[in-house]
Amino acid sequence: MSAFADHLAEAARRREAAGLTRVLSCDHPHGLIDLAGNDYLSLRHDPAVLESATRALQAYGAGAGASRLVTGTWPVHDELEAELATLTNMPAALVFSTGYHVNLSVITALADTDTLVVSDAHNHASLIDAARLARGRVAVVPHLDTAAVEQALRERTEPRALVVVESVFSVLGDAADLVALHALAERYDAMLVVDEAHGIGVVGGRGEGLAAATGLTPSERLVITTSLSKSLATQGGAAMCTPLVREHLVNTARPFIFDTGLAPAAAGAALGALRRFVADPAMVARVRDAAGRIADALGVQRPAGAVLSAPMPGPKQALAAVARAAGAGVRIGCFRPPSTPDGVSRLRLTAHAGLSEADLEHATAVLRTLRA
Amino acid sequence: MSAFADHLAEAARRREAAGLTRVLSCDHPHGLIDLAGNDYLSLRHDPAVLESATRALQAYGAGAGASRLVTGTWPVHDELEAELATLTNMPAALVFSTGYHVNLSVITALADTDTLVVSDAHNHASLIDAARLARGRVAVVPHLDTAAVEQALRERTEPRALVVVESVFSVLGDAADLVALHALAERYDAMLVVDEAHGIGVVGGRGEGLAAATGLTPSERLVITTSLSKSLATQGGAAMCTPLVREHLVNTARPFIFDTGLAPAAAGAALGALRRFVADPAMVARVRDAAGRIADALGVQRPAGAVLSAPMPGPKQALAAVARAAGAGVRIGCFRPPSTPDGVSRLRLTAHAGLSEADLEHATAVLRTLRA
Repeated sequence: MSAFADHLAEAARRREAAGLTRVLSCDHPHGLIDLAGNDYLSLRHDPAVLESATRALQAYGAGAGASRLVTGTWPVHDELEAELATLTNMPAALVFSTGYHVNLSVITALADTDTLVVSDAHNHASLIDAARLARGRVAVVPHLDTAAVEQALRERTEPRALVVVESVFSVLGDAADLVALHALAERYDAMLVVDEAHGIGVVGGRGEGLAAATGLTPSERLVITTSLSKSLATQGGAAMCTPLVREHLVNTARPFIFDTGLAPAAAGAALGALRRFVADPAMVARVRDAAGRIADALGVQRPAGAVLSAPMPGPKQALAAVARAAGAGVRIGCFRPPSTPDGVSRLRLTAHAGLSEADLEHATAVLRTLRA
Repeated sequence: MSAFADHLAEAARRREAAGLTRVLSCDHPHGLIDLAGNDYLSLRHDPAVLESATRALQAYGAGAGASRLVTGTWPVHDELEAELATLTNMPAALVFSTGYHVNLSVITALADTDTLVVSDAHNHASLIDAARLARGRVAVVPHLDTAAVEQALRERTEPRALVVVESVFSVLGDAADLVALHALAERYDAMLVVDEAHGIGVVGGRGEGLAAATGLTPSERLVITTSLSKSLATQGGAAMCTPLVREHLVNTARPFIFDTGLAPAAAGAALGALRRFVADPAMVARVRDAAGRIADALGVQRPAGAVLSAPMPGPKQALAAVARAAGAGVRIGCFRPPSTPDGVSRLRLTAHAGLSEADLEHATAVLRTLRA
């Protein structure tokens, strides 16, 4: 047996013994109420979204055909960028092939050895990997600890600094104080990078996200990133920023330059989804209302967006609760180590705009029993 | 002005002065013969590919809806994985949302601090970034220097080692000696990671790629990666490997775990493209024949796959040749610093199975004048 096979088999045994083995399954049992996926606005099967995706697929092909800088930029990319910039009230936008790509790109293109990266402890894996890939020093600050951000900025020796947070955090569903962080960026001459993957389509009167809803946009000290795979119902990512930052990304961000452009069908789908919720902002209100009722049923604080979590004593109890909910017709998820920043196992749930009143009543009744 | 704006504006001025500013354009002039894109088998607009994409879009939605491990795995992912494994004669496969994701995932999941990564100097940006993200030591060896690979493996102090190459290299279009490298992996108890982004669909009797065509598969010392954006005509990536490696990736690869699954339309498109060239392997022969004729016209060595390049004196001459070719109806690309591993500017061309005889005759006539 090879050294590698030995090593991997041993890692598999350790996972198994700890009850942490994960298995892929394409099994989607019929009739389960979905409180696990990221399709916050229930637009993944929306006819207008599918039509917009199909139109781009037919017009521009099954793939972009090349990297964006070679021959892989199509009108649907331009349109999507223009409408994302308008939605978030930022001057420009750039579309990427995944949310991971946009975060890797923004952080590595902006942070060199003369740049301190101040990163919230609950930041998404893509932001953590991006900070590790960047060439500068990284200061990880306790979750939502604005004073710690200020201290890191004040005591830095680097001429430049990036403060990196999620607007609505994926782990706990709580929100960053963007106003305070933006004021710190001004006071200490830094740039604020806000990942709105869980804010776009969910926060604000028409789903414009937390930064725009808070009145922070436009700002030259702000870069907003987002995935296109949550409220925007497909796959991909985008950065909303100044033209200067956009040009810098186009010219220097390796995960942008050395990557085939976002598939036209995905760009078309995101464009269709954006237009749907801008035209019908009631769905944005509906998903937040549903999230509040789910939180109440679980006995946890109402979340800032559509994602929420409830702590459990351990990974086995979390898995058992997931199984119990499934048995009662409700699909929920859980976070277990190593996916949690603090080692705490949690139930992880998401609200969706498309949940019917009957679904919500049944689901909340089931959830009320889960942590008893 | 902020420190960041100053810094970015200065970088933009330096690029401009060096003639290295890149600009995105969705302008695709009509009537140009395309020798720049990555759609090697000209399947991006193939009716069967579009139909397969549309079917998956309608059945599973505009996005996977969640990460693969939550509720984002669909039958089309399973089918694509099974057929990619069969194509490459490997026991298992795992699909990712981009080629970057698969390379980041494979290298970071396999290489820990006890693992030496031996990386060819011409490797793609995603492999370089992946090696930097991995926790182990990285030995960059001169391009195609098998003796240097052997020396690095022999002198290593780490218990494990990964040798990382492209099968057909994107920069020069030349091929790695996979038989020799695989023998070294056996002799020195290492694992060989081969990026077949430019091999799948192009090399071998039915587009099975260089590793399978060379008779190396199946092997437990081999992990094959590929993008789905070249011959497979869409967006995404895949790893072909043993079930043990696949399970390790599913459980530990952060750019797999913390990422929404590949959009169903893209998975469907890749599946449709794979079936097309397996059913009609003449297209695989056609693209290689076209590549050979393009190489002859440029006066460079015939490439191992569909991608080829010709060195130019500098970035300005490369840009001028690209413009001259466009003026004569042929779209080609170029590599300029910082996209080149050795600072040499190059014309960069790709062959396509769908080029007509008239297109090829016109294009080769234009190319013969370009480097004069």
